[in-house]
Amino acid sequence: MRAVTIKDGEIVVDDRPDPEPGLGEVLVQVATAGLNGADLLQVRGAYPAPPGSPADIPGLELAGTVVGLGEGATRFGLGDKVMGIVGGGGQAELAVVHERQLSPVPSTLDIESAGGFPEVFTTAHDAVVSQAGLRPGERLLVHGAAGGVGTAAVQLASAMGASVVATSRHEGFDWRLEALGAEVVTRPGEHAGFGPFDVVLELIGGTNLDGDVRALAPGGRIAIVGVGGGIKAELNLLALMSVRGRIFGTTLRARPLEEKALAARAVEREVLPLVERGQLAVPIDRTFGLDEATAAYEHFRQGGKFGKVLIAF
Amino acid sequence: MRAVTIKDGEIVVDDRPDPEPGLGEVLVQVATAGLNGADLLQVRGAYPAPPGSPADIPGLELAGTVVGLGEGATRFGLGDKVMGIVGGGGQAELAVVHERQLSPVPSTLDIESAGGFPEVFTTAHDAVVSQAGLRPGERLLVHGAAGGVGTAAVQLASAMGASVVATSRHEGFDWRLEALGAEVVTRPGEHAGFGPFDVVLELIGGTNLDGDVRALAPGGRIAIVGVGGGIKAELNLLALMSVRGRIFGTTLRARPLEEKALAARAVEREVLPLVERGQLAVPIDRTFGLDEATAAYEHFRQGGKFGKVLIAF
Repeated sequence: MRAVTIKDGEIVVDDRPDPEPGLGEVLVQVATAGLNGADLLQVRGAYPAPPGSPADIPGLELAGTVVGLGEGATRFGLGDKVMGIVGGGGQAELAVVHERQLSPVPSTLDIESAGGFPEVFTTAHDAVVSQAGLRPGERLLVHGAAGGVGTAAVQLASAMGASVVATSRHEGFDWRLEALGAEVVTRPGEHAGFGPFDVVLELIGGTNLDGDVRALAPGGRIAIVGVGGGIKAELNLLALMSVRGRIFGTTLRARPLEEKALAARAVEREVLPLVERGQLAVPIDRTFGLDEATAAYEHFRQGGKFGKVLIAF
Repeated sequence: MRAVTIKDGEIVVDDRPDPEPGLGEVLVQVATAGLNGADLLQVRGAYPAPPGSPADIPGLELAGTVVGLGEGATRFGLGDKVMGIVGGGGQAELAVVHERQLSPVPSTLDIESAGGFPEVFTTAHDAVVSQAGLRPGERLLVHGAAGGVGTAAVQLASAMGASVVATSRHEGFDWRLEALGAEVVTRPGEHAGFGPFDVVLELIGGTNLDGDVRALAPGGRIAIVGVGGGIKAELNLLALMSVRGRIFGTTLRARPLEEKALAARAVEREVLPLVERGQLAVPIDRTFGLDEATAAYEHFRQGGKFGKVLIAF
């Protein structure tokens, strides 16, 4: 099979042996696979793949067709359309995935979009709903709303009856974020007047944190999911105490299979019904062919995207 | 009645009108009342009393005898020994407290110790057990373990089957902390080799936080309860994400009656049985008379105490 591979810190396309599905695993012929921030860290050598995942094939999510079943795999049949999160190796013509990390692709989602669905919607749902416990009627602030996780969170929170304030550096995206359900779209640092916020989804990190804490409602929660804007933050502990606030950091990739499977079941139960009703979409910034993988990574590194960057196989 | 009062940023003893119990309230003749860090902030004008509490009488906890009942107060009878947390006004000969904020004094706890029990044991139980969710077999780090909340947390966690690492600046207290159940007692900054920790109880704050995050086990939780060592902290967001850690700030004083009542019920259910079995004690550093209130505050401001400082009425 052909695969996106990391060679000496660069992205190239290379031939690799076809993987074989093991116990409870499924062989998927990949249709599309999304790019994510963690892929960039992995290319730079800063975020090695977890044990059991290919060390040099990036890709944390994929959608495609079941073309092989390992021993004991019973959740799907040959030819089924599936999507899911993987620990790595998603950006290849073939990928092996444990069946409990996969979900069916709803009929309302085309297979191209499906490759950009799992990582961002699972991350957004897990961080904002399962962990931060966002409730209908609460107010969510999304920092860095134009990216994949941001656009997923804006739609999810709006669909479940929360009010959403979104920030993005690019004024040109304001109408698109409003179309996804944001009540207010503003620039980073100009959000304070629209609070206080019950939940903050922090996709930028760094110097944002101090302002996040100051804009928190009593009992508010801050989910740290992205740190592209800096990993060091200053925290005023008394401000956090005075609102009895909570800050948590979260990643999906490092979790064991059981926890990833639980997150996938939660998405099937609470998010896929919204997809089936047409309330959620996957905004796609651009889809590249496999031969354009290097260009896809170049494009992903630039700012000013709206939604997902995908590779089609 | 005579009361500890704040006058121009100083502690004096003054005469005040006797308070009258209102709907659901109880009039308590105070036997002892503990001093807490928040009292010092209030004396400095940095932490005003919440609405409904006397503005100039400090004191967040008390124990004593029921000597009057307001309309609809049915939980206690005249002459009952009670203890509880108040929003302020505890350091007076008489105090009015809503009956749902009070608990009975167990027969195994003398009334002097009882005045130093509610704030520290409720704070420790609420932060470490109810909010951080410490479980038997987990490992707890207590920073600033020799104070009131610290000694309460060491005993509680040890009694429930967690292992406890305690830090204190004073080597002389090591044997006392070990006697309360700490497995390891060490100096601040020298705890890392005894981790990783599932829960950290941070009673010092400031520069401790960075080391707390680095010593966290996957899924670990840090409770910020005291910030006498500084309110500004540096936080490495990527380190927090990599362990999927959680930091929360908490105070009891600002909570509404319903939440304080819930915390009191949790203490009655989960902590008082341990007092009745003799597994928990209130270490008392020193008890002052009302006429020595100014000296009590001076003493409380100094470091090097072990356990509670009390005023007896």
